Amino acid sequence: MNELITKGKSAKKAAKELAKLSTEQKNQVLSAMADKLISQTGFLLQENEKDMEAGRKHGTPTAILDRLALNPQRILDMAEGIRQIIELTDPIGETIESFSRPNGLQIEKVRVPLGVVGIIYEARPNVTVDAAALCLKTGNAAFLRGSSSAIHSNMAITRLIQSVLENHQLPVGCVQLLEDTSRETSDQMLRLNEYLDVLIPRGGAGLISHVVQNASVPVLETGAGNCHVYIDDKADLDKAIRITINAKTQRPSVCNTIETLLIHQDWANRHLKEIVSALEEHKVQIKASEKARTQLPHLAAATEEDWATEFLDLIIALRVVKNLDEAIEHIEQYGSGHSECIITENQVAAQRFLREIDAAAVYHNASTRFTDGFEFGFGAEIGISTQKLHARGPMGLTALTSYKYLLHGQGQIRG
Amino acid sequence: MNELITKGKSAKKAAKELAKLSTEQKNQVLSAMADKLISQTGFLLQENEKDMEAGRKHGTPTAILDRLALNPQRILDMAEGIRQIIELTDPIGETIESFSRPNGLQIEKVRVPLGVVGIIYEARPNVTVDAAALCLKTGNAAFLRGSSSAIHSNMAITRLIQSVLENHQLPVGCVQLLEDTSRETSDQMLRLNEYLDVLIPRGGAGLISHVVQNASVPVLETGAGNCHVYIDDKADLDKAIRITINAKTQRPSVCNTIETLLIHQDWANRHLKEIVSALEEHKVQIKASEKARTQLPHLAAATEEDWATEFLDLIIALRVVKNLDEAIEHIEQYGSGHSECIITENQVAAQRFLREIDAAAVYHNASTRFTDGFEFGFGAEIGISTQKLHARGPMGLTALTSYKYLLHGQGQIRG
Repeated sequence: MNELITKGKSAKKAAKELAKLSTEQKNQVLSAMADKLISQTGFLLQENEKDMEAGRKHGTPTAILDRLALNPQRILDMAEGIRQIIELTDPIGETIESFSRPNGLQIEKVRVPLGVVGIIYEARPNVTVDAAALCLKTGNAAFLRGSSSAIHSNMAITRLIQSVLENHQLPVGCVQLLEDTSRETSDQMLRLNEYLDVLIPRGGAGLISHVVQNASVPVLETGAGNCHVYIDDKADLDKAIRITINAKTQRPSVCNTIETLLIHQDWANRHLKEIVSALEEHKVQIKASEKARTQLPHLAAATEEDWATEFLDLIIALRVVKNLDEAIEHIEQYGSGHSECIITENQVAAQRFLREIDAAAVYHNASTRFTDGFEFGFGAEIGISTQKLHARGPMGLTALTSYKYLLHGQGQIRG
Repeated sequence: MNELITKGKSAKKAAKELAKLSTEQKNQVLSAMADKLISQTGFLLQENEKDMEAGRKHGTPTAILDRLALNPQRILDMAEGIRQIIELTDPIGETIESFSRPNGLQIEKVRVPLGVVGIIYEARPNVTVDAAALCLKTGNAAFLRGSSSAIHSNMAITRLIQSVLENHQLPVGCVQLLEDTSRETSDQMLRLNEYLDVLIPRGGAGLISHVVQNASVPVLETGAGNCHVYIDDKADLDKAIRITINAKTQRPSVCNTIETLLIHQDWANRHLKEIVSALEEHKVQIKASEKARTQLPHLAAATEEDWATEFLDLIIALRVVKNLDEAIEHIEQYGSGHSECIITENQVAAQRFLREIDAAAVYHNASTRFTDGFEFGFGAEIGISTQKLHARGPMGLTALTSYKYLLHGQGQIRG
């Protein structure tokens, strides 16, 4: 029997145990996990060094090596992440609704774990800890598949977590790592409907699209963000500059950063130069539409492809539009339904934008960088959903739950 | 450009129009649809006759021909179904939650349509009306794919609906039928992620499993039900017989009907004969475990396969179990997570069963036949979800919705 089936079976069995745990029991295990990681810092660093060495040998770029590296501070941060999850309210067992029917049947809708959650992710080993802790808190078994470049680090973390589970008389199936990181086995995991209730890919666009295209297990799609700020005719200059600069430069490599700036032509006639200067001061490279270049010919020209590109870098596409209609049309055509913002003092325009734009988070006069589980006050984040089923936008603990109906009768039958 | 792409594009465009409609506007269209179907009864019967004739020519079984047939009463019933949907509360636009953050950002979570809903279904033409009306009420564009055996009926219904849409200045993209019913085109529809937000298969187990296995568009899985009644040691005889007979015989061909009866051995020692007699009186064929046959040797023997079979007929598998643990284990192994019932006067046993059984609907002392959108009081039913993402159990109108976050700021940026 191969690793997938063996671990799938034990995950399914473990999920039943996890569903029965009290909040207190789950928090005790989490707390012991945090302690264990810190006390085993030496072991974690030693195993991580094996991945680092392999990475250096394969000529892995420094930026990626940096994401892979563990150090005592990063291990403390991982433990601190677990402690934050302990503080969160446990959603499991909550009665979401309760009603009775004319025949006397009492119906209760209660929140339950999803069961077995498969998580497929890329290099950073802290995702192993994060995913395991979030699943444990919500009573789900975690079936993890990290990348081969972090295999020693991930195996070490998993081994420590499993030793804590065993100390608490819990099956190791609660948190498992797929050790066979071949593409073939990973692809089989995408079709493991018998054992997995959901798959969550965490990583780059390539990984996510591969999972969406090939999985038969239900997927929670996260990730891609081609986000826009639209500066309306009646935008306040100071707000427009502050929000645009923040939304583009505060952390250019993440999904809630904007990639295209749309500007109403009348506002552009008054202030294009000022906003362009502000962007240039922040070292943002600008790719501009023809109308913008008529005014400022030194700007590079944008291509059709630029409107559709998630630069994830200090690069922005800039288009001067006729009006709100053209801005909405542009976003409909190129946006990825993640985060979209209008800057305006005109309430009618703001209301129209908020109502008509179809995205997970639609902003009026605030930076798109707030699309984030922590900034929303959820206390944790599984990812930011870009699909419309189950969960949309930042996902907190409840995104890792389902519900069931309990029906209390006194012998009712259907007539 | 092929039919899928053309219709996908126009559905996506229509969805934007639909999302803007008021409840009153949607109800006016629905009401006109109901009137139109009745006033065009002659046309519908004439087109339906083409399907019936083709069916008879191909030797289609009478039972299936009966499901395919339209008559004036069935057309009145379809119109009545639409009128019931008009009466339901429109979920779109509802503020689900509203909160503010320490930085003054106001966050509103509002209910929105899913967008474009693909529905793949089998023979009965009334599903065309039902699906179109449910989608319209929830502001979704309906992209329908019925079976080739009902193509003339489905095209006729769609044509009437589209004429009503046009009379109300709405695009025909709101409700479209895929006229190319080839398997190849249907399979392409399963991967039409650019235009479809969700796929809902409605039909037999083969259809549903094919869609789940091959779709890259998110699927709302409905259908398969291998449901159980467990008669506990402390079950009341009268309730046990009434519920078992109702859950098995009231409508044997549907998913919330039970397929296996589990009986505690002590209860079986007292009452096996009575419950078997009751089943036999209702012409139910019994396939029994060894323990049951020791007591009543005239019963046919159950095979391993029987425990896993959805008979959808007047056939039941019957197993005498040692205790509640063995009953729970049996259900965990063979159940499909649809509807499960315990009959007992022992509250402790009932609580354990309700807590531990992982199914969409878990019953104490009531027939599993109540797992149904209408019986739950939802007023409509899109289907009964057997997956855990998005919606579980009977799905009403809200299962056809998503949400978005609206963020109201005064210039907030992230620090």
